[in-house]
Amino acid sequence: MKTDATKDYSEMAAPIEFYFDFSSPYGYIASRRIDDLAAKFGRAVSWRPFMLGSVFRIAGTQPLTEYPLKGDYSRHDFARSARLYGIPFDMPEKFPISSIAAARGFYWLERQDPAAAKRFARAAYQAYFADGRDISDPEVLSAVARESGSDAAALMAATQAPEMKAHLKAVGDEAVARGVFGSPFIFADGEPFWGADRLDMLARWLETGGW
Amino acid sequence: MKTDATKDYSEMAAPIEFYFDFSSPYGYIASRRIDDLAAKFGRAVSWRPFMLGSVFRIAGTQPLTEYPLKGDYSRHDFARSARLYGIPFDMPEKFPISSIAAARGFYWLERQDPAAAKRFARAAYQAYFADGRDISDPEVLSAVARESGSDAAALMAATQAPEMKAHLKAVGDEAVARGVFGSPFIFADGEPFWGADRLDMLARWLETGGW
Repeated sequence: MKTDATKDYSEMAAPIEFYFDFSSPYGYIASRRIDDLAAKFGRAVSWRPFMLGSVFRIAGTQPLTEYPLKGDYSRHDFARSARLYGIPFDMPEKFPISSIAAARGFYWLERQDPAAAKRFARAAYQAYFADGRDISDPEVLSAVARESGSDAAALMAATQAPEMKAHLKAVGDEAVARGVFGSPFIFADGEPFWGADRLDMLARWLETGGW
Repeated sequence: MKTDATKDYSEMAAPIEFYFDFSSPYGYIASRRIDDLAAKFGRAVSWRPFMLGSVFRIAGTQPLTEYPLKGDYSRHDFARSARLYGIPFDMPEKFPISSIAAARGFYWLERQDPAAAKRFARAAYQAYFADGRDISDPEVLSAVARESGSDAAALMAATQAPEMKAHLKAVGDEAVARGVFGSPFIFADGEPFWGADRLDMLARWLETGGW
């Protein structure tokens, strides 16, 4: 029988859940910081790409860049936030893009090798937000998969597999059921944090156990 | 003739501009931190209440609490953010409210005594977000004015004066022209910062001169 102390420890050790869309600039910025931040508190991070567009339809919102006034500020802030943390960033000319293949490919990889899936995710984000490559183009995504050490042909085939389609759909449905409405969206022991600019608050939460 | 050094100093000494709506929870939270934060860098703060509803119509947005999913998160985060900084907060039952009289009263007071205007503004925010008082009710607003040491009758009369109506309208037009789309919205030497959760970034900007 578990003691209370064991139970608390087990809860503390649960991974941080990091929901993001591969087409989200703030998701990219958070992706460059989240694992190091969590590691400081002995926590792993479970990456959860999802389709932000589907969530926008439910939340009645749209990409930040589509709004008058807010769009200009957002573009300014993407670059400013990236500079603050020394993260390479070059706003893509084509934005937003469909990230559905990247997300399906991620989950296919994750089933075999979670570390390889993160390598692929980091490479896809870098390609799109730093290197000016359109990862919605199957040839580009395939190249990114190959460059990050994965079986590109198998990964691209998986992006069309009914099983992976269903899996990504289920991830999105679960995200909405949990209240996810933007990217990045992070859960730490069930506590929700929205936005790349909430990582310092997340760190404080992990440090203190909440307030 | 001014030297470049004099010009730089004069720019550095300009007040921080703090745009907010009296009906904005995050504006309230920022209002409790902004003056102390600015003072650390030898800066004053110019408070600029405006009508967020007018800006929402231009930006194509609405109050956070009106959006599915985002609304629940926002209510959770208002309280969580307030607790983090030890700020008393009790989500008003009636929300949002019209803050037009409070804003006009503020600018009328400011013309005579800027310190009195800030006292009134702090009292109005406290009344609405901590003490459960509806400041869109003229009797309540009048009481808040009196309690904060102002001539309540004169202030309430000013809220109906064509001159103050025009003044508030002009503040709102200028805010939109400068790209303001939310509350709080802060400018430091022209650099824009949106949101109560950007005060740490603002502090870093003031400390470093930007990046």
